[in-house]
Amino acid sequence: MTPSLSEFARRVPPFHVMALLERAQALSAQGHDVIHLEVGEPDFTTPEPVLAAIQDAVTHGCTGYTPAAGLPALREAIADDYRKRFGAQVSPAQVVVTPGASGALQLALAALLNPGDGVLLTDPGYPCNRQFVRLVGGEPQPVVLQAGNHFNVDSEAFMAQWQANTRVAMVASPDNPTGNMVPAEVLQQLAQGAQEKGGILLVDEIYQGLCYTQPASSVLAGSAPVLVINSFSKYFCMTGWRLGWLVAPEPLVPAIERLAQNLFLAPSTPAQYGALAALQEPTLTILEQRHQLLARRRQCLLNGLAHLKLPVVSRADGAFYVYVDVSDYTDDSFAFCANLLEKAKVAMTPGLDFGQGHDHRHFVRLAYTCSEARLTEALRRLEQYLESL
Amino acid sequence: MTPSLSEFARRVPPFHVMALLERAQALSAQGHDVIHLEVGEPDFTTPEPVLAAIQDAVTHGCTGYTPAAGLPALREAIADDYRKRFGAQVSPAQVVVTPGASGALQLALAALLNPGDGVLLTDPGYPCNRQFVRLVGGEPQPVVLQAGNHFNVDSEAFMAQWQANTRVAMVASPDNPTGNMVPAEVLQQLAQGAQEKGGILLVDEIYQGLCYTQPASSVLAGSAPVLVINSFSKYFCMTGWRLGWLVAPEPLVPAIERLAQNLFLAPSTPAQYGALAALQEPTLTILEQRHQLLARRRQCLLNGLAHLKLPVVSRADGAFYVYVDVSDYTDDSFAFCANLLEKAKVAMTPGLDFGQGHDHRHFVRLAYTCSEARLTEALRRLEQYLESL
Repeated sequence: MTPSLSEFARRVPPFHVMALLERAQALSAQGHDVIHLEVGEPDFTTPEPVLAAIQDAVTHGCTGYTPAAGLPALREAIADDYRKRFGAQVSPAQVVVTPGASGALQLALAALLNPGDGVLLTDPGYPCNRQFVRLVGGEPQPVVLQAGNHFNVDSEAFMAQWQANTRVAMVASPDNPTGNMVPAEVLQQLAQGAQEKGGILLVDEIYQGLCYTQPASSVLAGSAPVLVINSFSKYFCMTGWRLGWLVAPEPLVPAIERLAQNLFLAPSTPAQYGALAALQEPTLTILEQRHQLLARRRQCLLNGLAHLKLPVVSRADGAFYVYVDVSDYTDDSFAFCANLLEKAKVAMTPGLDFGQGHDHRHFVRLAYTCSEARLTEALRRLEQYLESL
Repeated sequence: MTPSLSEFARRVPPFHVMALLERAQALSAQGHDVIHLEVGEPDFTTPEPVLAAIQDAVTHGCTGYTPAAGLPALREAIADDYRKRFGAQVSPAQVVVTPGASGALQLALAALLNPGDGVLLTDPGYPCNRQFVRLVGGEPQPVVLQAGNHFNVDSEAFMAQWQANTRVAMVASPDNPTGNMVPAEVLQQLAQGAQEKGGILLVDEIYQGLCYTQPASSVLAGSAPVLVINSFSKYFCMTGWRLGWLVAPEPLVPAIERLAQNLFLAPSTPAQYGALAALQEPTLTILEQRHQLLARRRQCLLNGLAHLKLPVVSRADGAFYVYVDVSDYTDDSFAFCANLLEKAKVAMTPGLDFGQGHDHRHFVRLAYTCSEARLTEALRRLEQYLESL
């Protein structure tokens, strides 16, 4: 007899794309050439200078624990980077290095939420956010974004959803799945609004640096107090190393550090030595080249989708996603993805994974985490598939 | 204005040894030669074959995400290792690879506890366990172990503490801070007892393999359903890589895997490739040599403490800790540690960090994570210090 699961564990849904992924793997195993547009990680491996720095550190014996909040040198390097690249004043004492942005989000919410407290979250949005809120007994409060408004965050409409129990407003910029950047003035309005309510704005900046129509930015360049989570996974191409960070108002940090001691002990030591090299030349030049490659892929994909008359209603000016309206072809984007995979061997992520409040049945997410040649082939297959409908 | 902390965050205590550590660092910076007997990690760096395997994997591009439950090959290797080294039948499907044993403990408790559910925990015990229980709204229920009974876990006395709301009983073998192994028959009694109550036993085996008076063992060799957390940190000397695992009854695993997807995405990829090499020759031979070194250090420390007439009331037959009774010299082991550091430049961990229920004011924890030469010097200084009192 096995004991029963907690209510929380029972209610955590699977990622719906996983079922498609399993099928994609089975098709690959049968010899089919599946094109993966569903993958939320860069196809670039970790840059060589980062790997060299890690190798150097571990051969010099740096394989033990670091302080819970991370290597002091890395906290300083991150703070410096905010000044240099984003014009933001951040003290190293505000920076807590974490096991991925997942760790950062967990710390931020555990530090702020009592059971029953609410968190405003965009729908569509990154699906795990809801679970971090529920883990500590909080209440996810979805703010539904409208396709008709390009899935933009409107600060007034967003703050109008603030409830008596709301403590945190959370947005991502660039956003997953829409690729949208939230304009700086909107972020400042949200930050001030949340502060006036006695709460705080939390901004997910894990796709920072991956933007294509404007310079990279951070909400921290503004003046209102905010929490920021970030990651070495996406721009820095270190997904598998699991390293992120949190920037918090300094008065909150001692408690967050105690939480980190207890919940994680410390973030990965080798990854931290790699991150030090990630924030410097020659890595930054490599990353900028990759950024330019992504920009070309994005344009390739947007051109192809325009040719197919498939609307990208979001601005898709950041991250490596476009969120595509397939309502001319289906009222069930999950079935659309499943059929597309079977018939055309192209994998995409159905809108359902990003929230049930928005018009998910009409949307699919495409990631441009494969080469232009593969994107072009995927678009060719997609065209053929659509014509067959 | 900064928003207020959650009740949980406010109540997380610091590790008291951290204040001593800061002072130790200040003394070192002033040129003093501080001997560290407070450190809970091996002084051995990660074995060379493990580093070579990691380097090989990352130069072959293995720097992306793995499945949330870990590389299938690693889950299999861990299951195989249970069969080969411990005579335990474990299916790869029961194994979930995690970011450290911390991640494993978090998954286990989040999967089982509803707010208000209780967890029996030994006092003394690993201090973070309480916080993982509180994080999900659970109630830590300390079971005070008696110095007069060598801090042994008595299954009847332990299970007598089971409350109406208790769901999990948790013990560690080998234990931190006492170093005690819990005998196999006691573990089976606890597992059966917990099962009869509709709950489950959770065993922390992160010091598995570090035992000195009997062969290494696992509760999984028994028949009652249990949860086990384990780690590549201690026996395998991979602390900074942050890799652990959970073994759970198979019916619980799909939900635990969904939790892992949401809370962690995946454990560190390079660390997992390293772990594959850690479970094989030539690493196992290196680890066994280190184990023998630890055995000699343990004997050196036990002999020295006997010479000083400082009682080690626990059996200290595992891990790398002895829990020492200093009641002949103090009623305040924290002050004892602070003074010892100032006068003799030897750092130890006061009992307070391991729980307030047991007779913590009379105990200090010594870790034999430094060389015999340093241990001998520490004992010399300790003798001098005690004579000065």
